[in-house]
Amino acid sequence: MSTGHVTLVGGGPGAWDLITLRGMRALQDADVILTDHLGPTDELSQLCETAEKTVIDVSKLPYGRQVAQEETNRLLVEHALAGRHVVRLKGGDPYVFGRGYEELEACREHAIPCAVVPGVTSAISVPGAAGIPITQRGVVHSFTVVSGHLPPGHPHSLVDWPALARAGGTISVIMGVRHVAAITATLIDAGLHPTTPAAVIQEGTTDQQRSFRCTLGTLAQTMKVNDVTSPAVYVIGDVAGL
Amino acid sequence: MSTGHVTLVGGGPGAWDLITLRGMRALQDADVILTDHLGPTDELSQLCETAEKTVIDVSKLPYGRQVAQEETNRLLVEHALAGRHVVRLKGGDPYVFGRGYEELEACREHAIPCAVVPGVTSAISVPGAAGIPITQRGVVHSFTVVSGHLPPGHPHSLVDWPALARAGGTISVIMGVRHVAAITATLIDAGLHPTTPAAVIQEGTTDQQRSFRCTLGTLAQTMKVNDVTSPAVYVIGDVAGL
Repeated sequence: MSTGHVTLVGGGPGAWDLITLRGMRALQDADVILTDHLGPTDELSQLCETAEKTVIDVSKLPYGRQVAQEETNRLLVEHALAGRHVVRLKGGDPYVFGRGYEELEACREHAIPCAVVPGVTSAISVPGAAGIPITQRGVVHSFTVVSGHLPPGHPHSLVDWPALARAGGTISVIMGVRHVAAITATLIDAGLHPTTPAAVIQEGTTDQQRSFRCTLGTLAQTMKVNDVTSPAVYVIGDVAGL
Repeated sequence: MSTGHVTLVGGGPGAWDLITLRGMRALQDADVILTDHLGPTDELSQLCETAEKTVIDVSKLPYGRQVAQEETNRLLVEHALAGRHVVRLKGGDPYVFGRGYEELEACREHAIPCAVVPGVTSAISVPGAAGIPITQRGVVHSFTVVSGHLPPGHPHSLVDWPALARAGGTISVIMGVRHVAAITATLIDAGLHPTTPAAVIQEGTTDQQRSFRCTLGTLAQTMKVNDVTSPAVYVIGDVAGL
């Protein structure tokens, strides 16, 4: 029996048709699909009805049920070694806080061929779906995408939030719902003005999309009052006021 | 005669199959396609052979021939007002230094319906195609995408390069071939170590892809020696050493 192969597919921000052609072809060709609650999962069951595919849910809901990354890696390797084409369908892009590189390395350790298909990242496309361009000529020439899964000052945090406040570009935060109060307070303390335009978008590009425009100073309260939950992206900078 | 509509499509980094399903459907439905030399243009003529479409080249090659943005906007509006579905096919994502918002505003001024289809940005996918993840757990929790079309210190530049040097995340520079020497010198002056891993990728995801690993201190020379030309992306940070 020959070894199979693995494709890590960036599924995009959520809407089914925002996956790439290459990503869709990988799904169609897959024998086994490992998926979670992010990305374009709504029509996955429909895709699989017409073909014999095994779909395995490896959901890692924030602060909820955990299927360890090690278990995901183990499943990728196990099914590929059994000769199957395994697709790991991920939300957004596999390399934007997607742990795609860890999965690639797990395949490499077992000499399993592994291809990576990039995807539309929610950090850019979700603000865009709410009418907010991440850049705009004459307004901003850079943007920073940050994971907000750790609060500023956390011993494991690798983000210099004060430096980001000074860099002057658009800031797009993903996985930052829980720590929004600490993050916005840190940015303001570092000198970013509380009236800086901001916006938060929950479940962007899907039928459930909700978005709220506010300012850096009112972002945390806006999210609290409107009960904004994950997955959500918030964007801070002048483009949020366009 | 009723007004047509416009779709701004992010075509992705270059490979034909890295456009989204939604973007491809827009191309298939289009009466008129405005395109340039970026994004997935190789198979465009093939697509148009099988259907009556007008393709208009609005190339804006760096430092070369210019079709003014105003002329592009005028064409979008003119053809839409004539009742056509006009697709503006752009490389990468329309909002990542793509002047997408300006085109959206031009449509709005004439009450022309305009949809924006996000795309896979080359700032992330091109390093990925060379095996470099823009983020990696335990290594980096943020990344900044910068336009390098203006050198540091230029009166119109809106980028605080020294602050970026201090922010600690991955830096991905697009449109930065011409000014790489000034950009890398500025980052080093601001405290980023010359041995910081770096890489440059020309024409990423296409058949012509070339990539070179080096360091921040040797990036400009590496690009010069190897005659790296646009379009190219360079990435600076520990992930470039993975």
